[in-house]
Amino acid sequence: VEPGPMTEARAHQDRLTKPSGSLGVLEDVAVRLAGIAGTCPPPLPVPAALAIFAADHGVHAQGVSPWPQEVTAQMVANFTAGGAVANAFAAEVGASVTVVDVGVAADLPPAPRLLARKVAYGTADLSQGPAMTQEQATAALTAGIEVARELVDAGGRCLVTGDMGIANTTASAALICAFTGRPAAGVTGRGTGVDDATYEHKIEIVRRGLRANGITEAGAVPDGPDEALRVLAAVGGLEHAAIAGFVLGAAAARVPVILDGVIAGAAALVAGALAPDAIGYCLAGHRSAEPGHAVALAHLGLDPLVDLRLRLGEGTGGLLAHPLVSAAARVMHEVATFDSAGVADKGD
Amino acid sequence: VEPGPMTEARAHQDRLTKPSGSLGVLEDVAVRLAGIAGTCPPPLPVPAALAIFAADHGVHAQGVSPWPQEVTAQMVANFTAGGAVANAFAAEVGASVTVVDVGVAADLPPAPRLLARKVAYGTADLSQGPAMTQEQATAALTAGIEVARELVDAGGRCLVTGDMGIANTTASAALICAFTGRPAAGVTGRGTGVDDATYEHKIEIVRRGLRANGITEAGAVPDGPDEALRVLAAVGGLEHAAIAGFVLGAAAARVPVILDGVIAGAAALVAGALAPDAIGYCLAGHRSAEPGHAVALAHLGLDPLVDLRLRLGEGTGGLLAHPLVSAAARVMHEVATFDSAGVADKGD
Repeated sequence: VEPGPMTEARAHQDRLTKPSGSLGVLEDVAVRLAGIAGTCPPPLPVPAALAIFAADHGVHAQGVSPWPQEVTAQMVANFTAGGAVANAFAAEVGASVTVVDVGVAADLPPAPRLLARKVAYGTADLSQGPAMTQEQATAALTAGIEVARELVDAGGRCLVTGDMGIANTTASAALICAFTGRPAAGVTGRGTGVDDATYEHKIEIVRRGLRANGITEAGAVPDGPDEALRVLAAVGGLEHAAIAGFVLGAAAARVPVILDGVIAGAAALVAGALAPDAIGYCLAGHRSAEPGHAVALAHLGLDPLVDLRLRLGEGTGGLLAHPLVSAAARVMHEVATFDSAGVADKGD
Repeated sequence: VEPGPMTEARAHQDRLTKPSGSLGVLEDVAVRLAGIAGTCPPPLPVPAALAIFAADHGVHAQGVSPWPQEVTAQMVANFTAGGAVANAFAAEVGASVTVVDVGVAADLPPAPRLLARKVAYGTADLSQGPAMTQEQATAALTAGIEVARELVDAGGRCLVTGDMGIANTTASAALICAFTGRPAAGVTGRGTGVDDATYEHKIEIVRRGLRANGITEAGAVPDGPDEALRVLAAVGGLEHAAIAGFVLGAAAARVPVILDGVIAGAAALVAGALAPDAIGYCLAGHRSAEPGHAVALAHLGLDPLVDLRLRLGEGTGGLLAHPLVSAAARVMHEVATFDSAGVADKGD
């Protein structure tokens, strides 16, 4: 991101007919958008393009989720048919919906809005050893980069991350542990709904995954891109790898990317470890109910825009943030200055 | 609001292809919308209609704001010309903008989107005695009720409150003190920006206003509509009275009304004291940076939707909440059920 347009944006904000600073977090968003685009005022981040990366998880066999694994494929069908919450929210904010199969454990029939980029039929069980080979992780990462480029080529001016993968909050917790150095109990959540016993078991599975892959709980974070890639392959999911690539692709295209919830937060930690500058292109769409999400956002230095106790995934929280991001940019284009409007400035 | 459609909405939420409760606060919003409309699914709250009630305040003479009083009229001109932040946000969310002069201390030339409903050229100084006569307060209240009806008649399906009035956070603090029984220091804020000395002075002016009008600081709250109207006239503003009426008008029309910030929160306390059922038609658009706003919302039992440290007023926070409210309603119309989509439900 470029500092010059950011300084210019900050100065412009202070000339507009509003008390200085009175748009709170949205002033920071507008400044960030100027830095991302390298120009002030920043272009409107419209239209938005959502990519839902879908994949399955070998760790599902450990009983970490009350949902059957088949729901991943069933929800992909729901997305392509337009019947999921993500579709309704995308319609609300004028975003396109693209579903990317990077690792669903089933053969999916071709469907509108579905991109077939399957790297594997799900990951291996991370609690027993590496979830992916490094080649698989790299292939999924590359798929994410390519999808970002394709969506921008198709006219998308703001990317939004989405995910679908039963058991993916378990892999997210393991990634957040590894990339922030926080203990498992502090970053593991109840996902889409587990009872107390399953929750304790889930924390233990995260710990087992770290141990099985030579990662010290609450230890040192990955040092450099090679180690980051190794950890991603060890305890991540194919959709985490793809979303990390999606973030890198957005940064390469100089387009903002709104992160959804805890899965995107975990993936952004990977992206940041691979290319720290990429985080400057990220906006945190919301804070989910998962405790690991707040940890990831704090580590990334990102402030969430929406905080409505959502815990659905799919990109729903990211989509809801889009009108806020767009409104922040619109202020830079449409609002009069004190001089132009003949409004007196504050007298101190 | 009707309990039957609310129960039906809650049950429908649990059949949709999403984990139960995973839409957090938005599930409550959808349920509330069903109760407001008296039908499930609730109609989409689209389009939104913003009314910015503008008025001046005699207490400005006490030096509670760094802004000259003329800024109220200047900002009205900015709204009617389309150059304010509220205009930009309204364009973003597809809302109409109507400006209502209920008490600006100047003669305003006719302008598009401007309704002339002036009750007085500003209020009297609340720190010296009653800000309004009861007749003035009632006239402003009636103007708000009428504007609500007119906007609904013109097709508005979700009302949004807005305000403009230099020094109106002082009157808001006094109203919040009186209607919640909290001390002045806990509900008075820095408004659009005052320094430490002015802030202390502002608290003292609020206290003086309560004393001058026979209201005990941290004492009993108004008992019944007559006393509520007396307190409104004593320490409120003409825009507070009008917004209280606007809330009553929305309730009468069975249309949701999104409250903006601290001025709307103070006005809603008045509306709730006049007609407690009216609060069921209110949604709290955001939580502003003003401390009194959180106090007012807690007293009303309302959860804010947006929390971005905004402190601008004009309806900006309410407008930003509109896509969230609309998205909540849209879920009830467009999302598939587990049965219809062939998605397996959670296995516990």
